[in-house]
Amino acid sequence: MSKPTNNMRSLWLNARLATMDTQHPAPYGALHDHLLVVEQGRIAAILPQGQLNPASFDGEVIDVAGRWITPGFIDCHTHLVYGGNRAAEWEQRLLGVPYQQIAAQGGGIVSTVRATRALSEAQLAATSLPRLQALMAEGVTTLESKSGYGLNLEDEIKQLRVARQLGDSQPVEIVPTLLSAHALPPEFAGDADGYIQHVCQDILPTVAEQGLAEAVDVFCESVGFSPAQTRRVFEAAQRHGLRVKGHVEQLSNLQGAALVAEFGGLSADHIEYLDEAGVAAMRVAGTVAVLLPGAFYFLRETQKPPVELLRAAGVPMAVSTDLNPGTSPFASIRLAMNQACVLFGLSPEEALAGTTRHAAQALGRGHSHGKLALDHVADLLLWDIEHPAEIVYGLGVNPLAERVFRGQRPGKETTQ
Amino acid sequence: MSKPTNNMRSLWLNARLATMDTQHPAPYGALHDHLLVVEQGRIAAILPQGQLNPASFDGEVIDVAGRWITPGFIDCHTHLVYGGNRAAEWEQRLLGVPYQQIAAQGGGIVSTVRATRALSEAQLAATSLPRLQALMAEGVTTLESKSGYGLNLEDEIKQLRVARQLGDSQPVEIVPTLLSAHALPPEFAGDADGYIQHVCQDILPTVAEQGLAEAVDVFCESVGFSPAQTRRVFEAAQRHGLRVKGHVEQLSNLQGAALVAEFGGLSADHIEYLDEAGVAAMRVAGTVAVLLPGAFYFLRETQKPPVELLRAAGVPMAVSTDLNPGTSPFASIRLAMNQACVLFGLSPEEALAGTTRHAAQALGRGHSHGKLALDHVADLLLWDIEHPAEIVYGLGVNPLAERVFRGQRPGKETTQ
Ligand SMILES: [Zn+2]
Ligand SMILES: [Zn+2]
Repeated sequence: MSKPTNNMRSLWLNARLATMDTQHPAPYGALHDHLLVVEQGRIAAILPQGQLNPASFDGEVIDVAGRWITPGFIDCHTHLVYGGNRAAEWEQRLLGVPYQQIAAQGGGIVSTVRATRALSEAQLAATSLPRLQALMAEGVTTLESKSGYGLNLEDEIKQLRVARQLGDSQPVEIVPTLLSAHALPPEFAGDADGYIQHVCQDILPTVAEQGLAEAVDVFCESVGFSPAQTRRVFEAAQRHGLRVKGHVEQLSNLQGAALVAEFGGLSADHIEYLDEAGVAAMRVAGTVAVLLPGAFYFLRETQKPPVELLRAAGVPMAVSTDLNPGTSPFASIRLAMNQACVLFGLSPEEALAGTTRHAAQALGRGHSHGKLALDHVADLLLWDIEHPAEIVYGLGVNPLAERVFRGQRPGKETTQ
Repeated sequence: MSKPTNNMRSLWLNARLATMDTQHPAPYGALHDHLLVVEQGRIAAILPQGQLNPASFDGEVIDVAGRWITPGFIDCHTHLVYGGNRAAEWEQRLLGVPYQQIAAQGGGIVSTVRATRALSEAQLAATSLPRLQALMAEGVTTLESKSGYGLNLEDEIKQLRVARQLGDSQPVEIVPTLLSAHALPPEFAGDADGYIQHVCQDILPTVAEQGLAEAVDVFCESVGFSPAQTRRVFEAAQRHGLRVKGHVEQLSNLQGAALVAEFGGLSADHIEYLDEAGVAAMRVAGTVAVLLPGAFYFLRETQKPPVELLRAAGVPMAVSTDLNPGTSPFASIRLAMNQACVLFGLSPEEALAGTTRHAAQALGRGHSHGKLALDHVADLLLWDIEHPAEIVYGLGVNPLAERVFRGQRPGKETTQ
């Protein structure tokens, strides 16, 4: 969904720019003493200070007084829209209650499906909004939002419509993904192939026709769907002109990433068990590796994604929250970046690239988002920091001074 | 430092109380359908709904509409007051620069000492305030604040005076601790015994005389001070009527916890390498075990504190942020609680006890703080949740609806 633009012209003076553009010097593609011009919600110029006279500029002039500016953050893997939470179930697990018993009590993903189905669109939007606002408060300007807790035509559509509504009502851009192949709904117990057929023949075509999703995702795992079932969903996506991506190699290696790559997929996500063959396939296909350290942390996993292999192959690594009630109840992109460094060994620059340039690529927006570059969207974050690493290093205090969505400054609408 | 009280009387109706008082049923000492009366900043009554007629109550009546109320959070181990940050140094470590090279460049704790010494009291207060506000925003109503980045008489006193100032200017209660034996200052390079003598003969007596600290802390470790040096500091503290506590057993086992216990210490903190003998000594002495999962996480430690042994012995476990620029740059008590569960295996109830009842005991305030109980301070948190585990389970969204400091509602002063 593209956002409306506006006619405001603005000039941002005395900035330190972390462009995240590899055309400029590493680290951070940093440019000191530069100015930035915004027109119609896009970046119209990036110039050395002094090459443009602010006095003759026709528009708003903002002196940022040496602040750092980064691109807006892009959270490229979230399950934002859901009902209920799983805190009580988490408590039971910590108290040693066996998973089987929790499942027998109706816990696990089906409890989120039940809670999500029970809510109206308005209720679902209301319960998801605080999560969206928490992400935005940390500087998220674009995010993905998956279905996958409806698991039938009506409720999958409901989740995707709520995502659209939230994007329409907030300055953030929301990119919807169909994840009907997330889990087996109770109605199809024992008949995964039957459900996949329903997804391919009914849900996916309807969603595509209504323009409610840009891409299709599958949970390809021993406890999810098989590679053969995943392939059927990907083929259906292809028939309907939708890009694909996958939850793959999280708990075991089913060669799911290579399957995603075979279909020219946008991203392979989780990938703790990804091997060299999978990395090579992703490199050739231009598939982004999406690291989700929140789930790794919350599930107390020990197998880390093959960061060294990905680096060596030049596969772009994105970093995302995986925000969801079961395995990553964290609406914090800065926590995800910090965890990517501490738990997976990324550098702060890699973590920032993971929520800007590479996350944009993971959402098929590499040419318009995720960098401070000409003609890219003017989603800007202004920071009260001395060094870009500070964005990733500490938590609790939010050093974000101001957010700009498509050239607009929320709370400053009167200046237009 | 005790806070001023006020004369407001208030009645809190229709609450679900997580009293954290072991007199009431586990978990959480929960009382449903109860009301709570506050007088002069203290809890004056806790009664079943219906035993007091709100219409005849002389004071403010607040209907909390079924919200949960917990005691205010107590962060019993922080290095709140410091200058600068260590983000660039952390980045270098992540990029593989050896520690020796970072130290040779002036990095490590001495860089924080340098930055802290360079600031005036007003500057130090201003740079520490956002961290304090972040803690308060999550519900911290009492916290400890250590010195230890001055490492000379003048600058140690400056740090402690800033802690007092912050406590005077904010509704929160700040408990000051002298940690001059944190690291060896450059002026005493190669002469740790000489510095300890300076601490015992000059810094500690002056601080005690000026009433600037309630307790004395030592970093007892191979890279800190020896048990013999720690003992000398503890003896000096005893002579001047100050309680003791220790950073002990974080990186190795020097039997520091037993030493703290020998002096009737308030708490033994970190304690990853604590053994059974240390646990037994703490149990006998009533010393609290303070768990600091933020530092464990940030330093990528693998040795976990002996939670099972502590549980079995009935040693109270507190949970704290260890907020500091070098090893735990996290001004978030909810992150600490979440990490205590995920990384150390505490239950949500244990984590909440760790930031209320047990943290109060670690600050020598077990009889006045950390519980919803008669005559305890009326530091109250009101939560938009269905289950207390939600406080610990998710991050990003803050479900805290309202904070009450000593019976006062910040932002609602006009209602008095
Ligand atoms: Zn996911
Ligand atoms: Zn400490």
